[in-house]
Amino acid sequence: MSTAHTAQMKALRKMRPGPGAALDSVPIPAIGPSDVLVRVRTASICGTDLHIYQWNPWSASRIRPPMTFGHEFCGTVERLGSEVTGIASGDFVSAEMHVACGRCRQCRLGQSHVCQHLSILGIDQDGCFAEFIRIPAGNIWKIDPAIPEHYGAILDALGNAVHAVLSGEIAGQTVAVTGCGPIGLMSIAVAKACGASTIFALEVNAQRRAMALTMGAGEALDPAADDVVDRVQAATAGAGVDVLLEMSGSPQAIQMGLRLLRSGGRASLLGIPSEPVTLDLVGGVILKGATLQGIFGRRMFETWVQMTELLKARRLNLEPLFREHMPLDRFVEAFSLLQGGLAGKVLFYPNGSPR
Amino acid sequence: MSTAHTAQMKALRKMRPGPGAALDSVPIPAIGPSDVLVRVRTASICGTDLHIYQWNPWSASRIRPPMTFGHEFCGTVERLGSEVTGIASGDFVSAEMHVACGRCRQCRLGQSHVCQHLSILGIDQDGCFAEFIRIPAGNIWKIDPAIPEHYGAILDALGNAVHAVLSGEIAGQTVAVTGCGPIGLMSIAVAKACGASTIFALEVNAQRRAMALTMGAGEALDPAADDVVDRVQAATAGAGVDVLLEMSGSPQAIQMGLRLLRSGGRASLLGIPSEPVTLDLVGGVILKGATLQGIFGRRMFETWVQMTELLKARRLNLEPLFREHMPLDRFVEAFSLLQGGLAGKVLFYPNGSPR
Amino acid sequence: MSTAHTAQMKALRKMRPGPGAALDSVPIPAIGPSDVLVRVRTASICGTDLHIYQWNPWSASRIRPPMTFGHEFCGTVERLGSEVTGIASGDFVSAEMHVACGRCRQCRLGQSHVCQHLSILGIDQDGCFAEFIRIPAGNIWKIDPAIPEHYGAILDALGNAVHAVLSGEIAGQTVAVTGCGPIGLMSIAVAKACGASTIFALEVNAQRRAMALTMGAGEALDPAADDVVDRVQAATAGAGVDVLLEMSGSPQAIQMGLRLLRSGGRASLLGIPSEPVTLDLVGGVILKGATLQGIFGRRMFETWVQMTELLKARRLNLEPLFREHMPLDRFVEAFSLLQGGLAGKVLFYPNGSPR
Amino acid sequence: MSTAHTAQMKALRKMRPGPGAALDSVPIPAIGPSDVLVRVRTASICGTDLHIYQWNPWSASRIRPPMTFGHEFCGTVERLGSEVTGIASGDFVSAEMHVACGRCRQCRLGQSHVCQHLSILGIDQDGCFAEFIRIPAGNIWKIDPAIPEHYGAILDALGNAVHAVLSGEIAGQTVAVTGCGPIGLMSIAVAKACGASTIFALEVNAQRRAMALTMGAGEALDPAADDVVDRVQAATAGAGVDVLLEMSGSPQAIQMGLRLLRSGGRASLLGIPSEPVTLDLVGGVILKGATLQGIFGRRMFETWVQMTELLKARRLNLEPLFREHMPLDRFVEAFSLLQGGLAGKVLFYPNGSPR
Repeated sequence: MSTAHTAQMKALRKMRPGPGAALDSVPIPAIGPSDVLVRVRTASICGTDLHIYQWNPWSASRIRPPMTFGHEFCGTVERLGSEVTGIASGDFVSAEMHVACGRCRQCRLGQSHVCQHLSILGIDQDGCFAEFIRIPAGNIWKIDPAIPEHYGAILDALGNAVHAVLSGEIAGQTVAVTGCGPIGLMSIAVAKACGASTIFALEVNAQRRAMALTMGAGEALDPAADDVVDRVQAATAGAGVDVLLEMSGSPQAIQMGLRLLRSGGRASLLGIPSEPVTLDLVGGVILKGATLQGIFGRRMFETWVQMTELLKARRLNLEPLFREHMPLDRFVEAFSLLQGGLAGKVLFYPNGSPR
Repeated sequence: MSTAHTAQMKALRKMRPGPGAALDSVPIPAIGPSDVLVRVRTASICGTDLHIYQWNPWSASRIRPPMTFGHEFCGTVERLGSEVTGIASGDFVSAEMHVACGRCRQCRLGQSHVCQHLSILGIDQDGCFAEFIRIPAGNIWKIDPAIPEHYGAILDALGNAVHAVLSGEIAGQTVAVTGCGPIGLMSIAVAKACGASTIFALEVNAQRRAMALTMGAGEALDPAADDVVDRVQAATAGAGVDVLLEMSGSPQAIQMGLRLLRSGGRASLLGIPSEPVTLDLVGGVILKGATLQGIFGRRMFETWVQMTELLKARRLNLEPLFREHMPLDRFVEAFSLLQGGLAGKVLFYPNGSPR
Repeated sequence: MSTAHTAQMKALRKMRPGPGAALDSVPIPAIGPSDVLVRVRTASICGTDLHIYQWNPWSASRIRPPMTFGHEFCGTVERLGSEVTGIASGDFVSAEMHVACGRCRQCRLGQSHVCQHLSILGIDQDGCFAEFIRIPAGNIWKIDPAIPEHYGAILDALGNAVHAVLSGEIAGQTVAVTGCGPIGLMSIAVAKACGASTIFALEVNAQRRAMALTMGAGEALDPAADDVVDRVQAATAGAGVDVLLEMSGSPQAIQMGLRLLRSGGRASLLGIPSEPVTLDLVGGVILKGATLQGIFGRRMFETWVQMTELLKARRLNLEPLFREHMPLDRFVEAFSLLQGGLAGKVLFYPNGSPR
Repeated sequence: MSTAHTAQMKALRKMRPGPGAALDSVPIPAIGPSDVLVRVRTASICGTDLHIYQWNPWSASRIRPPMTFGHEFCGTVERLGSEVTGIASGDFVSAEMHVACGRCRQCRLGQSHVCQHLSILGIDQDGCFAEFIRIPAGNIWKIDPAIPEHYGAILDALGNAVHAVLSGEIAGQTVAVTGCGPIGLMSIAVAKACGASTIFALEVNAQRRAMALTMGAGEALDPAADDVVDRVQAATAGAGVDVLLEMSGSPQAIQMGLRLLRSGGRASLLGIPSEPVTLDLVGGVILKGATLQGIFGRRMFETWVQMTELLKARRLNLEPLFREHMPLDRFVEAFSLLQGGLAGKVLFYPNGSPR
């Protein structure tokens, strides 16, 4: 029987330290009394997966091969541990892949997204680029039937965007988004849906700037060519933007973003710089009375509730982001597309062919 | 010269205690060093004006005739006091009609909308149903050129709606609006523009329910006919709504609204009941851990900034609300229309004919 | 062996509908894989326990005899279910007695204190007036060694006070506390420790007014004799208090409390009225722009963290509240003292004699 | 007559670019219709005044000599402009020295402390090291009679501390204060009064560490000698502190402070680094989900209300900070003491001898 725990499954795995990955056959995960086994329908590739594939310095310091990666997915519940309640076999689900300890100070304060003992599925434990994945029951998120399947595969990334946008006021606010990869583009759509007024998208890649306008940006500027600070100041009566959503991780973008931010404004930083960043803390933060927020993961589970409501009510059109649908064995092509700067998401179908 | 302070102007005035009003000729207001004289282009009638016209008990206790009423308007700056800066003759403006003292505890805490010594233009002092109105300079609000003139005439009422909607989280929230007069209808549009998911409109008047759907409500229910609580519970997985916007002032609506509200939810109360209200505080508020907020006026001037941004970015389509455009001397007809339950706004043009 | 699950223990139980209770011998609770068995060292009597003992209308509608009541306690971990981690045998613990489902909208939004499927130990399930109690592991709270044992027995009630006081700003705020039973008195101590300026205690019982002054109130007023509104207005420059902490459940106190509250202020309602309450919503809430909050239980587990920190840092002197220490079999005397209006707490020692 | 506007007064002035200052005789300031003339009773020296005296690079770029400096003071109202209401001759007052425009986006949003067109008395306009000072009426703050005169002289600096401490939750929070100059020391007292639990003071100067303990710190650590990170981690169960109050402006202190901060914590930055700061944004902010806030000036006028309440209620004992009381002509000695690292405040008495 295909779901018996001694049975084998296909999985995309980092086999050893270094670039690349391989399709392998491994046992279907065993589950404990509080776990759920999910049959993966659709998985989506994150920028972090590309880093793992390429084996950048962060990956080399964190990933312990052999392991199955991937952390954006949806699927159906295959099997339930004996202690699990409120979830049924066949339920269509996704999951919060950040597993929190539940007992540290942050967990006790409702900040389990920054748990002291966080373990991430697809990074610290086996992930979703496989036919099946084991998920602790508390991390399962049932997907509302009104939400299309392909949206279910990108909730992890969309959740990053929703978390960033809704970490402060957004209605009636002017916004700058620095960096228009998938999360940056989604954050434009979310900000727009939540009442942001003018959204300035800052991005060096012309294709992504075009996408940004499609997603709802009012202006798409090229920091390499345009005088971005002048333009934003002119459009905001010299004040600067109320909100900065930093999605690039580029030190230059962070520095420019703080120049664009108005005094008293909010900067939500999600992009991960690869090195320490030198900031004009006096002019950019202190004298401005500005607020900088680190954004990591998704609020458990406020972000999931907000995201579900926005999707159910059809407030987010993310269709332009869905670019490629592939079986798992075309992974080399998938990563190569992303490496080339594809402005959108690639979806895997580990248990069968794409739609 | 028409603007000299000894010159006369036309004004719609409550001449004596009792129902009705009269067009009168009165001196153009003199202004002090910190005042601005505005030539009224467009004024709009509020429900409160109808109360004054009809001389309800509240009016009888508060209004001191003879006085010019009206408190929703826009116009152009005619003259400036010697101490006024930052405003120029000819500027197109509206005004916050609640004049705060600036020195009481609330004013010092950034809550001047509930100033201890509040005086309201059009209620405690002469208002805008006239060719000219005197406004303290600090209350003047310059209207962004991107905002259409007729929208400029209803900023006071729209501000009530924006204040109510944005007094707590709204993005990704389910909402019930009880009472679909103009402010209720505007609050539907505002909530929708700011990311609310499903909005339930509750209203006994069928025409207003139809308007509610036009403005963005997902469902329009008749509390007199439908089993509203059952319907809302069914649509919210038994939780109830996240947000109640109470716009009717009806004790029954308030009581039902609290039954619709989910535990941990927010009820923003703007409608003014005409009598004390008996509440199930235990089941409706305390055990629910609910929050009730009194909503009065507009935040000075956060609400004005938010409203301006939403209008500039064309996030609010309020066109269906604009129903009648009249010269000031057709006031009898105007009040009669509103008394009949007209679902929308009537605009006056004291200095000339409507468009 | 005394802790075997077939062994018997002593428990104070409501045996049948109606007033009174009885000491009974019942099996020591069996525990499931995610449960903890705690040997009760000290239990404290809550006003709710008195209601159950007296069999008031609320008890009659909610309690299903036979059952063991009591929900304030501390003790040592006796036994652990197989899935429990992070807790060890012998740990000195208390517990959050509100058991939340973890999956409803409120739980997902970090509001599990108002969970849709809340079950309360000592009310809906067996409680702590017994030698042992079964607690779901997630509800266990380890008591910091710096906190004295008798404080450990009242964390449930103290948590109510901390939840109420810290549900909004308190530093530099003027406060009125209506009702000076144990939670009211604790809330005075907490407010004082957290920077409240003047605290007005309103209470008809002279002994409790004296206690209020001991706990940190600046003035203790008798609503039956003093002109409370005049006095508070005079002391607050006519503004009223910034914060109302309503701890009495008396409709008159709620009504008077809203008259004392300044415009823009916050009223946190914890006392449970026994009937619907008629409010001047217009003057007391809406025109004031006031905020009313229902306070129920404790935030899970923010309140527990805050309370622990305040106790560890010795910011709360609650000694005057500890009035009587008794073995469980003196329960008749204990309830009789409370019925007589004792201003303080009675502690039980189910496993041995008091200190 | 001594207060006539043609009369002369004594003032401590920066006469020309470069180090030093001089006592000069200048005309008593003329006042406009919305101004107040205050006779200075007590003035206090700020670190910024020392920078101006020493003529550091910031001073050279900002100060336009000749000008009277000084911006911490109290005194009595001498004369009122014709439009001023709510203030009387003889009132004992201090003043918010940041003069906001009232019309920019920040001012309209209740953030006038970061007004786009801020002008600072004592920096951009003549200050308080003089017998008289002109203050715009809106900036006058009447001092409650319960507050001692010498406290009235340091409200500007105390307000910085109150603003920093109360810019987020503080009750039940663990706190690190980096830098124990006067504002750092005051912030310890304020945090303690507002319910902070353990406060760690980090300071290289031994005398200031001793002061920190006097003001309420639980531990005073020397970053040059102690292993601060280890010590704080050990004392906070490995979590780090909930709140960082950065008062030093030292890049090293900021970097270490972020290492001390727990995930999900808040860092309020008030100290002004003299150069750009290189930060580990990833580990220190982003992955931590931390919040960094720039703190500038005082909230107008929330901070003043909070500060007044804390002082009125005698919640702050700042006596150890008052170190020297001098006539204005001993200014050379005063600045020399501060230059030497005096841990406390020097007060001037421009209109007469100290107590």
